Amino acid sequence: MNGKKYAAELIGTFWLTFAGCGSAVIAAAFPQVGIGLVGVSLAFGLSVVTMAYAIGHVSGCHLNPAVTVGLAAGGRFPAGQILPYVIAQVVGAIAGAAVLYVIASGAAGFDLAKGFASNGYGDHSPGKYSMVAGFIMEVVMTMMFLFIIMGSTHGKAPAGFAPLAIGLALVMIHLVSIPVTNTSVNPARSTGPALFVGGWALQQLWLFWVAPLVGGVLGGAIYRWLSDEPAGVVEGKSAT
Amino acid sequence: MNGKKYAAELIGTFWLTFAGCGSAVIAAAFPQVGIGLVGVSLAFGLSVVTMAYAIGHVSGCHLNPAVTVGLAAGGRFPAGQILPYVIAQVVGAIAGAAVLYVIASGAAGFDLAKGFASNGYGDHSPGKYSMVAGFIMEVVMTMMFLFIIMGSTHGKAPAGFAPLAIGLALVMIHLVSIPVTNTSVNPARSTGPALFVGGWALQQLWLFWVAPLVGGVLGGAIYRWLSDEPAGVVEGKSAT
Amino acid sequence: MNGKKYAAELIGTFWLTFAGCGSAVIAAAFPQVGIGLVGVSLAFGLSVVTMAYAIGHVSGCHLNPAVTVGLAAGGRFPAGQILPYVIAQVVGAIAGAAVLYVIASGAAGFDLAKGFASNGYGDHSPGKYSMVAGFIMEVVMTMMFLFIIMGSTHGKAPAGFAPLAIGLALVMIHLVSIPVTNTSVNPARSTGPALFVGGWALQQLWLFWVAPLVGGVLGGAIYRWLSDEPAGVVEGKSAT
Amino acid sequence: MNGKKYAAELIGTFWLTFAGCGSAVIAAAFPQVGIGLVGVSLAFGLSVVTMAYAIGHVSGCHLNPAVTVGLAAGGRFPAGQILPYVIAQVVGAIAGAAVLYVIASGAAGFDLAKGFASNGYGDHSPGKYSMVAGFIMEVVMTMMFLFIIMGSTHGKAPAGFAPLAIGLALVMIHLVSIPVTNTSVNPARSTGPALFVGGWALQQLWLFWVAPLVGGVLGGAIYRWLSDEPAGVVEGKSAT
Repeated sequence: MNGKKYAAELIGTFWLTFAGCGSAVIAAAFPQVGIGLVGVSLAFGLSVVTMAYAIGHVSGCHLNPAVTVGLAAGGRFPAGQILPYVIAQVVGAIAGAAVLYVIASGAAGFDLAKGFASNGYGDHSPGKYSMVAGFIMEVVMTMMFLFIIMGSTHGKAPAGFAPLAIGLALVMIHLVSIPVTNTSVNPARSTGPALFVGGWALQQLWLFWVAPLVGGVLGGAIYRWLSDEPAGVVEGKSAT
Repeated sequence: MNGKKYAAELIGTFWLTFAGCGSAVIAAAFPQVGIGLVGVSLAFGLSVVTMAYAIGHVSGCHLNPAVTVGLAAGGRFPAGQILPYVIAQVVGAIAGAAVLYVIASGAAGFDLAKGFASNGYGDHSPGKYSMVAGFIMEVVMTMMFLFIIMGSTHGKAPAGFAPLAIGLALVMIHLVSIPVTNTSVNPARSTGPALFVGGWALQQLWLFWVAPLVGGVLGGAIYRWLSDEPAGVVEGKSAT
Repeated sequence: MNGKKYAAELIGTFWLTFAGCGSAVIAAAFPQVGIGLVGVSLAFGLSVVTMAYAIGHVSGCHLNPAVTVGLAAGGRFPAGQILPYVIAQVVGAIAGAAVLYVIASGAAGFDLAKGFASNGYGDHSPGKYSMVAGFIMEVVMTMMFLFIIMGSTHGKAPAGFAPLAIGLALVMIHLVSIPVTNTSVNPARSTGPALFVGGWALQQLWLFWVAPLVGGVLGGAIYRWLSDEPAGVVEGKSAT
Repeated sequence: MNGKKYAAELIGTFWLTFAGCGSAVIAAAFPQVGIGLVGVSLAFGLSVVTMAYAIGHVSGCHLNPAVTVGLAAGGRFPAGQILPYVIAQVVGAIAGAAVLYVIASGAAGFDLAKGFASNGYGDHSPGKYSMVAGFIMEVVMTMMFLFIIMGSTHGKAPAGFAPLAIGLALVMIHLVSIPVTNTSVNPARSTGPALFVGGWALQQLWLFWVAPLVGGVLGGAIYRWLSDEPAGVVEGKSAT
């Protein structure tokens, strides 16, 4: 039943946003023993590993509008299901940011002005990278992410390992790109915190919808070409 | 034979508590090269990965009263077995804390007043998070933990990967929440060190029973709804 | 079709070089929360884990001239395919370095003189290790890398796990040897950044072709002896 | 043929000692970006993950006299093969330490007096832990290591995952116990560097043979009791 699929996407994207952004807000810069960018990278990636094993067999575990659209471009997902999937993902991400806000504001010193794990470029890039650099990074990373998703869920890839490959790809992506844009590759994940921070975070949000969607479509299409998949929708194993 | 199951739960929870808390007490803040919260998160999570492969086929490898109760709420574990499982887990955790105490006190500078990896809130939260923030964090984290356990051991999930998914979920949970409550999501793990520290640790111990149990029941029930599992007890693969 | 194989090798080596070197250039020494050498090691290794699941069934996912030559020495790859594979890998690595250059130069303070993740020895070794030390390290590490590749893709090894074994071997190799040569074990990965840095990086590039190729041949041959494989080319599962 | 098994054990223990100790000597305390104890823990553990997939089907991939003896105590390995296995392991470890010595001494500032990754207690424990604390730690850790090895290679455990469970157990063991003894749980790994350091390292070497062997026998025997395995030697899957 489709309702259960949407519920699974909502819960999964809640988890990705709550835990991924939560690791950054709560633990990254904890004095002396903080988890740093390695820990944040692991948290985002493992949210996908864990959810893909838990709900891959329910909804395919996209958790990300760029994944949903990219899989459609790759011929693996029906276009008519894109909209409800994306809505469920965005609602889940907002819920994740909301619960994180309630918890994180339970300690002195919490301040939304520190960014609340929002994505940004230029003056709001952690390393002050330009808008162009940020745009290219988000396109390339999402393109490669979809390429790996398409490949590791292909019928000839070993069964059961796709959640590891996909989640570890997200770890890698964060290891490289947090200093540039704070790493999105996922418009839903970007939207959640931006709604709480407002101002610059909302003004820059367009890039974290456009670039990942462009990259996702490119990645899906490139892999489809590489593997000579037929034109019709192939209901693949998607995430597991 | 049930006796062997209880022995397996006791040994497994010994391992989780001894090694998880041990990493925090002995190695987290070691000068210059300490493992930090990333290392502690890995140690707790890998204790579950390793034990789930070793004893999953014996007892299901719960190692945690909130897991046992949550699986019962999810229709995967018989209610009549809850009590002996929980007793074995608590005994194992106390034994783990005891052996850790003997070793850790073998170096100058050891002091129970530093916390001995106990869980706490308010003044005893590592980041001074409020009781409410701690309660919500423990409920949400245990809820998602059980959701992932239920999903990754479902008959449609790929066989053999559940110990990875579950253990890596515990890594994630710690990456986010150590600054808030020092991370419990496991009443047995909380009870072991609290008995040695006494005082505030025992006074705050109630939260680390109530919140994980509430979260565990919620997570088990939500996944059961999501997957439309039948009402009777399904002896699932639980941890492997 | 062979063209698709070459495209897969090109894209995969692009990913290894872009993300591996990118993690070093962009994130390793980020103030306070940088990923350090642990993060760089993970990025290089996970690039292989992720690509091996994505394109292992297309091209074998070598991504490395030393792997291609070593597998030929081990009787697993036809000698006539070495040249096009190596060309595709080198082109991919140069493309990876080029995209990285465009992004990394999008922040103030970027300077090719910092090394751009090039490999080096003597004065250009991160820890000032001698040329002899660097040569031995590269030979030994590539030899063991090929040994593990040959063994984990052997018909008697458990199916599906080779990408993990091989990628995690690359993590290990980097954990040990970055201070010595900045870690190559891969002539293509070395060539990409060296072309941008020029000067010393090009002058020292010979070592990062010779030593990995020698090591690769040794590792392939030793494993072939150990497993008594027949003399003809065995089209193995190579990377998956 | 048994000769090939001994060669595999020699090469595997070379890898564990060269790379594990190498990560500590070369990279742990590298300025600003050093891998710390988390990186060293990963290096030791991943040496077993990678080798177990590569040679598990050849020799069982013990790489450790305490594993060989513990598996014999657990009824999984023939007593008559213990001696040649242990000799091959010790020779491999010495070779690993020798190659590491040649490379590490290729940079200014190298000094065997810094310990060369030797194991020690009392004044030679990294955290100055007493001999009793070190002895207990080594016994408990090796006992749990063998317990996990026996369990994850049991016929009812999921096939193919044992190398991950066993290697990740070694990661955990190091995360906890490096400050206490620099972590042995493996007499061969201890013997290699001790021969180069001499003096105190040789005088304290007895503990790193006795405690791991005692722990290994305990772990093998406890698991055998837990699983009711028959008394005769069961040629199990051992490491894979």
